Amino acid sequence: MRHLIDPADFTLDETLRLMDLADRIHDDPAAYKDVAYRKRLATLFYEPSTRTRLSFEAAMLNLGGQVLGFPDAGVSSASKGETVADTIRIISCYADIAAMRHPKEGAPLRAARYSRIPVINAGDGGHSHPTQTLLDMMTIRRRKGRLDNLTIGFCGDLKFGRTVHSLIKSLSRLPGMRFVLISPEELRVPDYIISEVLAPNGIDYVETRNLEESLPELDILYMTRVQQERFFNEEDYIRLKNSYILTKEKLSLAPADMAVLHPLPRVNEITLDVDDDPRAAYFEQAQNGVYMRMALIMTLLGLADPKTGEVAFDVNG
Amino acid sequence: MRHLIDPADFTLDETLRLMDLADRIHDDPAAYKDVAYRKRLATLFYEPSTRTRLSFEAAMLNLGGQVLGFPDAGVSSASKGETVADTIRIISCYADIAAMRHPKEGAPLRAARYSRIPVINAGDGGHSHPTQTLLDMMTIRRRKGRLDNLTIGFCGDLKFGRTVHSLIKSLSRLPGMRFVLISPEELRVPDYIISEVLAPNGIDYVETRNLEESLPELDILYMTRVQQERFFNEEDYIRLKNSYILTKEKLSLAPADMAVLHPLPRVNEITLDVDDDPRAAYFEQAQNGVYMRMALIMTLLGLADPKTGEVAFDVNG
Amino acid sequence: MRHLIDPADFTLDETLRLMDLADRIHDDPAAYKDVAYRKRLATLFYEPSTRTRLSFEAAMLNLGGQVLGFPDAGVSSASKGETVADTIRIISCYADIAAMRHPKEGAPLRAARYSRIPVINAGDGGHSHPTQTLLDMMTIRRRKGRLDNLTIGFCGDLKFGRTVHSLIKSLSRLPGMRFVLISPEELRVPDYIISEVLAPNGIDYVETRNLEESLPELDILYMTRVQQERFFNEEDYIRLKNSYILTKEKLSLAPADMAVLHPLPRVNEITLDVDDDPRAAYFEQAQNGVYMRMALIMTLLGLADPKTGEVAFDVNG
Repeated sequence: MRHLIDPADFTLDETLRLMDLADRIHDDPAAYKDVAYRKRLATLFYEPSTRTRLSFEAAMLNLGGQVLGFPDAGVSSASKGETVADTIRIISCYADIAAMRHPKEGAPLRAARYSRIPVINAGDGGHSHPTQTLLDMMTIRRRKGRLDNLTIGFCGDLKFGRTVHSLIKSLSRLPGMRFVLISPEELRVPDYIISEVLAPNGIDYVETRNLEESLPELDILYMTRVQQERFFNEEDYIRLKNSYILTKEKLSLAPADMAVLHPLPRVNEITLDVDDDPRAAYFEQAQNGVYMRMALIMTLLGLADPKTGEVAFDVNG
Repeated sequence: MRHLIDPADFTLDETLRLMDLADRIHDDPAAYKDVAYRKRLATLFYEPSTRTRLSFEAAMLNLGGQVLGFPDAGVSSASKGETVADTIRIISCYADIAAMRHPKEGAPLRAARYSRIPVINAGDGGHSHPTQTLLDMMTIRRRKGRLDNLTIGFCGDLKFGRTVHSLIKSLSRLPGMRFVLISPEELRVPDYIISEVLAPNGIDYVETRNLEESLPELDILYMTRVQQERFFNEEDYIRLKNSYILTKEKLSLAPADMAVLHPLPRVNEITLDVDDDPRAAYFEQAQNGVYMRMALIMTLLGLADPKTGEVAFDVNG
Repeated sequence: MRHLIDPADFTLDETLRLMDLADRIHDDPAAYKDVAYRKRLATLFYEPSTRTRLSFEAAMLNLGGQVLGFPDAGVSSASKGETVADTIRIISCYADIAAMRHPKEGAPLRAARYSRIPVINAGDGGHSHPTQTLLDMMTIRRRKGRLDNLTIGFCGDLKFGRTVHSLIKSLSRLPGMRFVLISPEELRVPDYIISEVLAPNGIDYVETRNLEESLPELDILYMTRVQQERFFNEEDYIRLKNSYILTKEKLSLAPADMAVLHPLPRVNEITLDVDDDPRAAYFEQAQNGVYMRMALIMTLLGLADPKTGEVAFDVNG
């Protein structure tokens, strides 16, 4: 039995096969509408995340399956002091697969050890959020037609954003990647990303403070939110924040076939006039997320693709 | 694509057709059990309202459809500062139709502008609650056999009760209506209802402080709750509150074929001994609400009535 | 129409027939997957209890049915002052059967009086939790092959634990039972259990402070949690608590075919090294709970067993 706790739990080959399946689902969702008939997903959200929870639930319902669970810790047995180990053993009696969101790093991993059903990490603290990484990669590949030899800009809070770290790690397994890391000094990527991920893989990268100068060379621009509370003083925040807001005007500096991604929710880091630009791919990401999660659920349940008769990859591999 | 944000979004003719469909569903619910098979309703409740949410969910399940969503803002992305515009664009990836409850006036309207799926206003602040109005009208018509030439009493808090304002507006589109507005001085209907709704439509109405004197002439009595916090001082509240409580004794003054409606939840404004009186129609309203919402969902999704082969009205009209 | 508010609502014969049905479901769950097709369960949880709520929901989904409801009072109309009597009359318009959890004793009983659909008490305050009792009895019978002539130890908090009181009452209807009541002085079973349940039924029992000495003679050990707040002073708690924790070491004193039950959630009263012992039956209990609730829902809805063509017992009896 396989779980998905960290993006690296899947080999590059497995990841690509999963994306192939997600692409086939994207192109013909109706063909998958009964694939998981009578299978059941438990959504165990120890902290609320509407978008992620509903995306998993929509994915399971799209496959003909069922859903149960809880949307936040307040309505779970956690308040009575139960461990995730005990909870997942009980949930194993109620469902066939589980998606767990937890404020504490490592909780989904611990759950997986005791579980009789596959566990998907739907985000654990600042640690990992592997389905976000997978849907980001799927969106990049669909937009650019490939997952190699791309120049990808990451803009905003590169220090605390787990989606950025996760995506950088995963993309570093692919050939010919170049990263442009655009952030204020205070929010640079952590040193370990450079010393343990970029350097050992021989990845070409550049750090910069300037979004506008970087735009012309990007294939992908991955935006993130710059939160005021990350700054030492308000003055710095006010001085810097506009530099990391993408506007229609700045976007005019970017190539016509660049794609703008954002993990959402957005607050104000992309202005509304960008939404109608064909380069805006962030709502597309949300749609791709449903297809990717359908592919993942199918794969972890060992269900065959009705179009090819094959499973994405051997879960006992 | 049509939405339902305000009762006036539907013409009188459209409203009547919707009620006709709800009546047909009422008479043979089983005929509609697969009409929305695999269609999905999102219930987006930014403030809790069990009755309304479960009524929508029951309606969708009765049609063979599916449901997902959130029951209050605490478990939604709103807490992360996301706009309803962004939320509905994401929800459009997960569902085929949405019902939104929001404490802020105009939020469902704003959502509708950005949505790729039909949006139903399930109550926005003190503003509008159109499905309540529709189920009230349906209940009146079923009880009296017509929606014209009726004397309708509204009793209690006529100042703040949005359901009353909404229903007065909608009924004012019909011929021969007469309204008896029964309330304490402090809770009279707002002036704009008289100057902008009743007067221009030439509606016959009377304002009174006295429920008992009004009862003998009523076809319908629409009760509402009188909340203590609406009064300037406790003395006035205590002096007045009993005047606006419907008891079995007072009900003896009313015609035998009068019907008592109430939007619920009731606290104490109708005593329990009234519940078994055949004139009590307030639990019937709740049942009618499910059928009306089934009719509405069918209509906004453009689904045909399996019994007539027709859609209630052209959503592209 | 029958409800289940207290375990004694069912005769001993009815209880045994219900357990027979639950056993048949246990042995071939797939045979029951469409039994309640299009029937709907409402889960009305005025206080959160994930385990119990999800167990009911899993049971209904396993039968091919549907589910709606609310997971805590904060998202229900109770906050607007609605009575359970009014709520259940509305819910009767939305669902075919209801499971209600309520912090106030007697709330499910009151709901049942006004309901048009069967009501199951899913726990009301410290009062009753009949489905827990049923699944405990089912687990005992499955483990020991009989429900008579057994020596059953209850260990821990025997004063406040409603599951213990309920189970003692139900088992006292069976012949040849012997109870070993193991608790600190402060947490002895209430006097009424002895004077009104054990004595009148001529039940053989012994009260003791010592778990280790009792273990060798037990067929069943029913563990419960000892909460610090139950003690007058911390000193007593610290001195005593370890005596009522079951460890692998203590378990070595017990017969090889003894079974350890626990209503869960567990905090630390059974150490983790006991989990893998074949005598540990507490996760099995959770699984049995789903089958027992399937049997109960079928019975209260009057649905026939597809394998025998019979209903468990006549609900109009």
